[in-house]
Amino acid sequence: MRLQLSTWPEVADYLSTRRGVIIPIGSTEQHGPSGLIGTDAITAEVVSWRAGEVLDTLVAPTIAVGMAHHHMAFPGSMTLRPSTLIAVIRDTILALSSHGFTRFLFVNGHGGNIPSIQSAFYEAYEEMRVHHGDGAPDIACQLCSWFSSPAVEALAAEAFGDAEGSHATPSEVSVTWHAYPDQQRTPVLDPPVAPQGRFTDSRDFRRAFPDGRIGSNPALATPELGGRFVEVAVDYIATTYGDFLKG
Amino acid sequence: MRLQLSTWPEVADYLSTRRGVIIPIGSTEQHGPSGLIGTDAITAEVVSWRAGEVLDTLVAPTIAVGMAHHHMAFPGSMTLRPSTLIAVIRDTILALSSHGFTRFLFVNGHGGNIPSIQSAFYEAYEEMRVHHGDGAPDIACQLCSWFSSPAVEALAAEAFGDAEGSHATPSEVSVTWHAYPDQQRTPVLDPPVAPQGRFTDSRDFRRAFPDGRIGSNPALATPELGGRFVEVAVDYIATTYGDFLKG
Amino acid sequence: MRLQLSTWPEVADYLSTRRGVIIPIGSTEQHGPSGLIGTDAITAEVVSWRAGEVLDTLVAPTIAVGMAHHHMAFPGSMTLRPSTLIAVIRDTILALSSHGFTRFLFVNGHGGNIPSIQSAFYEAYEEMRVHHGDGAPDIACQLCSWFSSPAVEALAAEAFGDAEGSHATPSEVSVTWHAYPDQQRTPVLDPPVAPQGRFTDSRDFRRAFPDGRIGSNPALATPELGGRFVEVAVDYIATTYGDFLKG
Amino acid sequence: MRLQLSTWPEVADYLSTRRGVIIPIGSTEQHGPSGLIGTDAITAEVVSWRAGEVLDTLVAPTIAVGMAHHHMAFPGSMTLRPSTLIAVIRDTILALSSHGFTRFLFVNGHGGNIPSIQSAFYEAYEEMRVHHGDGAPDIACQLCSWFSSPAVEALAAEAFGDAEGSHATPSEVSVTWHAYPDQQRTPVLDPPVAPQGRFTDSRDFRRAFPDGRIGSNPALATPELGGRFVEVAVDYIATTYGDFLKG
Amino acid sequence: MRLQLSTWPEVADYLSTRRGVIIPIGSTEQHGPSGLIGTDAITAEVVSWRAGEVLDTLVAPTIAVGMAHHHMAFPGSMTLRPSTLIAVIRDTILALSSHGFTRFLFVNGHGGNIPSIQSAFYEAYEEMRVHHGDGAPDIACQLCSWFSSPAVEALAAEAFGDAEGSHATPSEVSVTWHAYPDQQRTPVLDPPVAPQGRFTDSRDFRRAFPDGRIGSNPALATPELGGRFVEVAVDYIATTYGDFLKG
Amino acid sequence: MRLQLSTWPEVADYLSTRRGVIIPIGSTEQHGPSGLIGTDAITAEVVSWRAGEVLDTLVAPTIAVGMAHHHMAFPGSMTLRPSTLIAVIRDTILALSSHGFTRFLFVNGHGGNIPSIQSAFYEAYEEMRVHHGDGAPDIACQLCSWFSSPAVEALAAEAFGDAEGSHATPSEVSVTWHAYPDQQRTPVLDPPVAPQGRFTDSRDFRRAFPDGRIGSNPALATPELGGRFVEVAVDYIATTYGDFLKG
Repeated sequence: MRLQLSTWPEVADYLSTRRGVIIPIGSTEQHGPSGLIGTDAITAEVVSWRAGEVLDTLVAPTIAVGMAHHHMAFPGSMTLRPSTLIAVIRDTILALSSHGFTRFLFVNGHGGNIPSIQSAFYEAYEEMRVHHGDGAPDIACQLCSWFSSPAVEALAAEAFGDAEGSHATPSEVSVTWHAYPDQQRTPVLDPPVAPQGRFTDSRDFRRAFPDGRIGSNPALATPELGGRFVEVAVDYIATTYGDFLKG
Repeated sequence: MRLQLSTWPEVADYLSTRRGVIIPIGSTEQHGPSGLIGTDAITAEVVSWRAGEVLDTLVAPTIAVGMAHHHMAFPGSMTLRPSTLIAVIRDTILALSSHGFTRFLFVNGHGGNIPSIQSAFYEAYEEMRVHHGDGAPDIACQLCSWFSSPAVEALAAEAFGDAEGSHATPSEVSVTWHAYPDQQRTPVLDPPVAPQGRFTDSRDFRRAFPDGRIGSNPALATPELGGRFVEVAVDYIATTYGDFLKG
Repeated sequence: MRLQLSTWPEVADYLSTRRGVIIPIGSTEQHGPSGLIGTDAITAEVVSWRAGEVLDTLVAPTIAVGMAHHHMAFPGSMTLRPSTLIAVIRDTILALSSHGFTRFLFVNGHGGNIPSIQSAFYEAYEEMRVHHGDGAPDIACQLCSWFSSPAVEALAAEAFGDAEGSHATPSEVSVTWHAYPDQQRTPVLDPPVAPQGRFTDSRDFRRAFPDGRIGSNPALATPELGGRFVEVAVDYIATTYGDFLKG
Repeated sequence: MRLQLSTWPEVADYLSTRRGVIIPIGSTEQHGPSGLIGTDAITAEVVSWRAGEVLDTLVAPTIAVGMAHHHMAFPGSMTLRPSTLIAVIRDTILALSSHGFTRFLFVNGHGGNIPSIQSAFYEAYEEMRVHHGDGAPDIACQLCSWFSSPAVEALAAEAFGDAEGSHATPSEVSVTWHAYPDQQRTPVLDPPVAPQGRFTDSRDFRRAFPDGRIGSNPALATPELGGRFVEVAVDYIATTYGDFLKG
Repeated sequence: MRLQLSTWPEVADYLSTRRGVIIPIGSTEQHGPSGLIGTDAITAEVVSWRAGEVLDTLVAPTIAVGMAHHHMAFPGSMTLRPSTLIAVIRDTILALSSHGFTRFLFVNGHGGNIPSIQSAFYEAYEEMRVHHGDGAPDIACQLCSWFSSPAVEALAAEAFGDAEGSHATPSEVSVTWHAYPDQQRTPVLDPPVAPQGRFTDSRDFRRAFPDGRIGSNPALATPELGGRFVEVAVDYIATTYGDFLKG
Repeated sequence: MRLQLSTWPEVADYLSTRRGVIIPIGSTEQHGPSGLIGTDAITAEVVSWRAGEVLDTLVAPTIAVGMAHHHMAFPGSMTLRPSTLIAVIRDTILALSSHGFTRFLFVNGHGGNIPSIQSAFYEAYEEMRVHHGDGAPDIACQLCSWFSSPAVEALAAEAFGDAEGSHATPSEVSVTWHAYPDQQRTPVLDPPVAPQGRFTDSRDFRRAFPDGRIGSNPALATPELGGRFVEVAVDYIATTYGDFLKG
């Protein structure tokens, strides 16, 4: 059930029995020579939409641009400042909260978003606490990065071994190819498996990772594997969401 | 050409000959008993994607949540504070600017966004001016609200007469039905044509417009008309963009 | 009745029967070779003070510096960032609101302020909504740009025809000469009627409009016409304010 | 020479030989049963305008609303948050700086503004330092509170003795009566000399000073004394400004 | 070498050969019935000072108050909003950067600070990138939470087994007792090992963890073990810092 | 009683009978060739801790980095922007306020902090007033700069005469030597008594005061005098605090 494809009376009806909402959050940034710039937003969206169906839960619009400073030395990458992204997430929570939503599950597709998402939860909690004390609205926020699921990691290890890497991975590329089968690119990747390493700012990132990949060989991606990754990610989200509503 | 479905080498190639980018911006807010909550984002996205094809121009991800405070008394509506939306747009411009984009056309689907968009343009210009003076990057931003095209207005007048109204209009609903034919709702609308009027804040809005519509009868919408609205809107965007690049 | 020329017991007395206040807002920016830099603040102030007399309504101090980035390539122009101006207006509304004022009419003399003013209204509404929900103070804000009155536009067309233009206009110069008869300048304007056109940032503005005027011939201004413009502008404000209090 | 009553070519001419500017800054707040709410803005403006004539120096528009939280329990008082006032002053400095002004003298009429003014100077300096290091523009800002002049204090002591007090003082009321002779109020003040004391927030202020005055008897004010206060204040500003320009 | 106990000529001398600096960052928050409220600041400070000696590296003042919203339902806990903490860290980096420091190691004592620290790094990087592009200062920031060292975790497992827990742990209490031997408290803890679990906001935290501990039995702490924890933590910091300077 | 060395049950107990708290605030900035960079934080901390003992009052952690833009041309100096420092102090007040603290005494060691501290008090008061009106928490904040005590000034005059100066003074250096007897430096100071004067930004400061001192001869400092300064400063704080609690 997508919020964008609902009417307000339908949301009113939903709220008569349920209080949870899923918010997909991704990024718009380079994913190497073959990966789509929208990979992190697409993957978060695909698994969220499917989870929304499985869980019969409302899914808000995808936050498509995240915190991706470190990718800014590659053309087409976009980023919000952390402070801007925090404000966006804070506003998202407080807007939906006023209708009666109380459980906010952010399904995340980009590691670089994690600090901003967690900061935003506490920014919202603290603003409510300072102004309303014990009368603050009962809201609970949780982060769920689909790619951190143990089952996703196991599947990636099984399918790609060490070539999974950590950016422009074959697993995320597989998911995008599953979602957009006509968007497969297969340029020659040199070296096939990209270097590993650390980085600081965007210039340092490009020095360390000249084509944008980190430790990965996305040429191993297939749409079929993408479908399997979606399945195990959705299982993970479903379990996480179930525990979240209970707890 | 969608940025999310491009790779960074493709964007580098694009930038070797072109400098413009289209950014769709909409809203996520109630659109009456039958209109989709995502109407303003969907319409901006649909016309932007089509314009991107016609103009062979890159289209950035849609900013799906806008400034919709006045709709917040209806369940499911979302809003950013104006200050947050200004920060998002400022960051969008400066992120893309650093790759060499210099012409930013914001294709807008929601009247309530207009002050924030215009404010953001000047926030970005002024920040660059203060810090870089004559060395500021040569960036130009333009707003194009597809629904304000004279041809769109003429088509709406011809098709719907006075029942077009100004919120949850049959023209925008038609576009969403053209984009999502399986998302048509046809509840009884009472009265068929909603009241007209002014409003201040969100409570006042709901007092004045109990079901969320302003002056409209969206029951007159059809997917076929939606296709025609997209065409004339794209013509308008194409002309606007051409003039913008020239001048 | 000017707030600055009142005492607090007089304001307390006013508030025992009335809830409205007028806030003039202008700009401090170049107005061509002959127009005063304070034109937009002076005109907003003059018509507001006269409207305050006619309506027996309190008039707050003039916000004299507005959003005028686009004029910053001309010496003497001042600007606030949009974000700063929004904060000023938000604070103005919430300060006066705490005394019991509930109807805020911003009488505006500068087109460039409009996005910031409108953004500020929603910034204030949304902050109150998030923190106080249905208990938010009942405040209503309205923008009234005196120069957009149909009667003002008609008088300008009648008096100046196409030479009215859109910046450093003979109508606004007339109002300043009416207010400050000893401040008339009559340099040679070359060409007499300035060019029309669009602009983006402050550098682009100066390239397009070398002496600062847009489409106008302010040499046609007279103090007498200025008096007439004040009259029709005050009528417009009076009608707007009456409707506002009612509605 | 008032900036608002100048044209841009006149400012360009001024800047060919001079670099200084005076910015009056006041407040809009209760001044007891007889004092005008605009007292602090009016006095700063009057002495600045006169100083501008004496020094042949440009005077920017008055910042009429300052930081007056502590007066907010009295109807009609207005305030900006300190953070907003700091932003206004920062923007003022950086806007004028870009034209070549380098010496900014803020002539202040309200003690409550002092922390915000001083904070703003360092906010501007630090922003320029962080971004431009040794290449930062050579700007210097100075605060001059006219009422703190030793000569002003001596005149007040001579004229009013202990009844000068520290808020709604006969000296500042005298200056407003000198500027606006028709705005004299003479209600019975009870007690004639208001209590002295300290205060914290706005509620505490009203508890301590029920009619708004602190330690003063403004019934001693006269327009003639007002004229003398303006003279000695202008002498003080002139000396301060001369020393400031020298370095 | 502590910055607070140095003179500026000594820092100038240091910078002639070295570019790194350690910044301890902790928190001021409840640590159960026996743990000191300053635990996280004390531990970060102790290990940083010792690391500074071992590495002959400058140590900046401790940031003693961090992001501890979740502890605010217990008296004495303090917190900054995430946005405030981000600003503090951003300012810290940019202030020291202007003297020539380029490698910033934040030695952290509190898990709740991690999102704000990481956000601040990118806030600083992105501000420099937007304004200075390739000319941005070459700064690199790294986070090192002493308690996350594998050797620290191994020692905790060896010494305390499952009673280490995750808040008010015997390992951190041991470090504070090592640093302040006269500050040992030994109240009865009931139950001896606190419950485990998750939490959202501050109210939820207190509901889940009534005495403030999470999963720990701090009665197992000893000053001697504290000394050993400091040693292994300093080894970890030294290795991390060495790799950081190289990489 | 130091907050960092307390447990939460001890703070709960404290709050059952008392409502006041002392917050030391200093700076981390050059203090000439012999003074410690941490002088202002050390002195504020030393006198606060002693005052806390004398008054049996809780002392919060020291805010060690203040507003010291003007010292930034000397290596090792640190500063927060005024806006950041204001946010830190606002958060400090509102965090402690939620536990029931109502009287906040900021014991300050650095003149440059004063505007930010005062601004922060009003930022907190005004935010509470706007959102809670008469229901705002009853909080009172007071600034006490230990070095401004008449008795401190008298002792400095007696001990050092004109060589006390105003930055890197022998009185503050004495206090640091009293606190850290092993941190005494005695470089040759040339001239022995530094020049007096005014300054604007950080570059101007270094031009005017080449070695960082203003008007002082810190070679006159002794640890014994430091002890006496602490005593008279603590007396001043005790009197101030007593008056503050009374009302």
